[in-house]
Amino acid sequence: MRRVQRENAPALDRLCAEVCEANRMLADRNLIIQTEGNASGRWQNWMAIKPSGVPYNKLEPDMIVVVDITTGEWLDPTGFAPSSDAPTHLVLYKHFGEKIGGIVHTHSPSAVAFGQMGMSIPCYGTTHADEFFGEIPVTRTLTPSEIATEYEENTGRILAEKLDPLKMPAALVYGHGPFIVGPDARTTVARAEVLEKVASIAISMHTLGDPKPIPRELMEKHWMRKHGKEKYYGQK
Amino acid sequence: MRRVQRENAPALDRLCAEVCEANRMLADRNLIIQTEGNASGRWQNWMAIKPSGVPYNKLEPDMIVVVDITTGEWLDPTGFAPSSDAPTHLVLYKHFGEKIGGIVHTHSPSAVAFGQMGMSIPCYGTTHADEFFGEIPVTRTLTPSEIATEYEENTGRILAEKLDPLKMPAALVYGHGPFIVGPDARTTVARAEVLEKVASIAISMHTLGDPKPIPRELMEKHWMRKHGKEKYYGQK
Amino acid sequence: MRRVQRENAPALDRLCAEVCEANRMLADRNLIIQTEGNASGRWQNWMAIKPSGVPYNKLEPDMIVVVDITTGEWLDPTGFAPSSDAPTHLVLYKHFGEKIGGIVHTHSPSAVAFGQMGMSIPCYGTTHADEFFGEIPVTRTLTPSEIATEYEENTGRILAEKLDPLKMPAALVYGHGPFIVGPDARTTVARAEVLEKVASIAISMHTLGDPKPIPRELMEKHWMRKHGKEKYYGQK
Amino acid sequence: MRRVQRENAPALDRLCAEVCEANRMLADRNLIIQTEGNASGRWQNWMAIKPSGVPYNKLEPDMIVVVDITTGEWLDPTGFAPSSDAPTHLVLYKHFGEKIGGIVHTHSPSAVAFGQMGMSIPCYGTTHADEFFGEIPVTRTLTPSEIATEYEENTGRILAEKLDPLKMPAALVYGHGPFIVGPDARTTVARAEVLEKVASIAISMHTLGDPKPIPRELMEKHWMRKHGKEKYYGQK
Repeated sequence: MRRVQRENAPALDRLCAEVCEANRMLADRNLIIQTEGNASGRWQNWMAIKPSGVPYNKLEPDMIVVVDITTGEWLDPTGFAPSSDAPTHLVLYKHFGEKIGGIVHTHSPSAVAFGQMGMSIPCYGTTHADEFFGEIPVTRTLTPSEIATEYEENTGRILAEKLDPLKMPAALVYGHGPFIVGPDARTTVARAEVLEKVASIAISMHTLGDPKPIPRELMEKHWMRKHGKEKYYGQK
Repeated sequence: MRRVQRENAPALDRLCAEVCEANRMLADRNLIIQTEGNASGRWQNWMAIKPSGVPYNKLEPDMIVVVDITTGEWLDPTGFAPSSDAPTHLVLYKHFGEKIGGIVHTHSPSAVAFGQMGMSIPCYGTTHADEFFGEIPVTRTLTPSEIATEYEENTGRILAEKLDPLKMPAALVYGHGPFIVGPDARTTVARAEVLEKVASIAISMHTLGDPKPIPRELMEKHWMRKHGKEKYYGQK
Repeated sequence: MRRVQRENAPALDRLCAEVCEANRMLADRNLIIQTEGNASGRWQNWMAIKPSGVPYNKLEPDMIVVVDITTGEWLDPTGFAPSSDAPTHLVLYKHFGEKIGGIVHTHSPSAVAFGQMGMSIPCYGTTHADEFFGEIPVTRTLTPSEIATEYEENTGRILAEKLDPLKMPAALVYGHGPFIVGPDARTTVARAEVLEKVASIAISMHTLGDPKPIPRELMEKHWMRKHGKEKYYGQK
Repeated sequence: MRRVQRENAPALDRLCAEVCEANRMLADRNLIIQTEGNASGRWQNWMAIKPSGVPYNKLEPDMIVVVDITTGEWLDPTGFAPSSDAPTHLVLYKHFGEKIGGIVHTHSPSAVAFGQMGMSIPCYGTTHADEFFGEIPVTRTLTPSEIATEYEENTGRILAEKLDPLKMPAALVYGHGPFIVGPDARTTVARAEVLEKVASIAISMHTLGDPKPIPRELMEKHWMRKHGKEKYYGQK
């Protein structure tokens, strides 16, 4: 167990357990291979995140790295370094504050294909609208100097330009892949899985012809019945 | 066990067990992810259907919601609300009466791709003709007012325009996905799986060139040998 | 155990066990779903084949139907009818005699896509040439009268026009799907799996551009090193 | 256990165990079917490689064949012949010497599709750049005389023209498929899996439009942070 301030230990242990499980879900749902991708969760001003380069099937809760969001320092390091994408996550947690509690980055192949094409994903159907309000955006390209210095932080900054925690919790980094935000790590993994499915269906549509977005009222209806104020999807 | 009229309890318990199994088959056969889709079954004037927003791997028979088809009221509610698509199912059970005993709605990706394109699926081969007599139709679009009011009921109405319980038990809701009908819930799931396979093959054909339907006599031969009056497929 | 002539019982039991296993392999290797497809094996003048319409995961050796190849009569029927495609198999066993000992019919999706397009599969690479000598042919279409009368037998006849047990043990029935022949049922299932892979790769090539066959000398080299007189692939 | 020189036995046993595991990984990660492909490893002047034509699920460490890299002779043969591609591996081990310790050949379908098209795979994104520095090359075609004589050795020679153990450890043999090199057999299998993923994503991009490589600075950034002198990916 981590040596942390006594009053925080149970909450951070729970956070690490959940983040460990969320990371394992990335592998179970075929959203990453090998050591690609990462999931993090937030509790108060702490971020818990996957250690860098560790295979998912060997991940245990006490290998999850806890980072102070303000300072970027690792809490009581166990010898594991956090994901190399940790600075991207920190930028997003600082930017969105209490609005988000989890971040997921995958290399899921269909979503990556759109990101590598520099194409956003229009709302082509209700599977998409059940989770995302409108077109899933792609970021702008990073400039050479943004790549040379603070690359991971700058990735967070161009994501922050596109993400909306409520209505558009996913964006595709140009040339790289998807980042998704949500209320906690596990819910965010589920959104990442929907994103991959939506992208995969869109690719099939391109095989069939020239896809068109669904009418706006249909998109809004599906999103609202699941996420709006008067939502009636799911159990109370 | 549900508190129901004593004489109906065993039949409704059997119905709920079958509907639970049919819903789990949707996940096992990769026709849905997460909480997408739903399967229902009918016995006399009762419909048993998946509860809304519950993951498939947690579904148990006593979580299945029983609804009075005429009134739409839930029988002895256990605290679970039925699928948000329940009104669509009810419209279809009322419309087709004794002709159908099961309804399945999936988000299987290849069938959804056709639905999102607004394209029907012509009968391109015998795999299709073994289950479906001719072109699998796509519904018309709903008008803005049909979306605004009684959206789920209207979805059932535009499906009823296209479905034929005997010869064409599947249709694609424009922009949404497939609905399939059949004699019971499990058989209908099997049809939903064939539909997805047929759609997937058709997408590959579009990669290869410009697909053409098979000759009508070949389509009829395959459908008739499996479903016609003088069928000779399967065991007596 | 079947009541058969005493001297044949052990050999036919072994045949049924192998054919049962071969049929189960069709499901395990994703070459069919539900009750699609069938595998058969031959011993002397007997054919053992899958019963019609039985799901693969319920198949047991004593459900396999044994048929007299000359007369088409079922040996000591256990109540199960043979596959509705049995007449196709019988035509091929009669046509090729001792040259084949197994026949497999699948609905594997990529091979079916080519068959439904009426396209043969040119030898685009060594994965293909390791098993098939040159272009995998597609049959001609059946005439309306060939469909109306003796449909399954006529399917066998148009296959016999295209198959070569040594060099080209697979062909695609136009609008339907692949049939494969081989020395025994299990080896033939393995060939059916290679066929599906070869077809799937060819579909990807069509996405990438305009595929060309490999040079004939490369095709022959790979086929010969595995199947030719001076083959050196595998163990002695 | 092999009868080998006493001082080498434990090291060669370890090598065979690792090579056996690497070969089994090829099947587990869907990079081959049946007896396709092969993985080898090197220790000093010995190569351990899969026996020819043996199914992966039956492979045990004592079936792995050890070959003297200089002479090509098998060490204490157990009756198993090495992979028919062993001469290709030997050419590469001789060519690159201490720079490589493992070689993998797969028939993974997306990479094969590029190889069969004679197309290299440009660096379309960071998933690619995390493992490969720039465009994954395709070999030239072999001449008819290179196919007729020393075919497998010549395959090694045209691969040696393209491979770079540090920056470009993978190449596609025209009309055939991928070969990958690395420090040991298991690491090389992991690279083969990334190659297949990269190729699969690239095929989806071709469905979406006309793919462009990512900017060189982004490619270099990702490769350098994982493989460069100042790498900071993974644990110390």
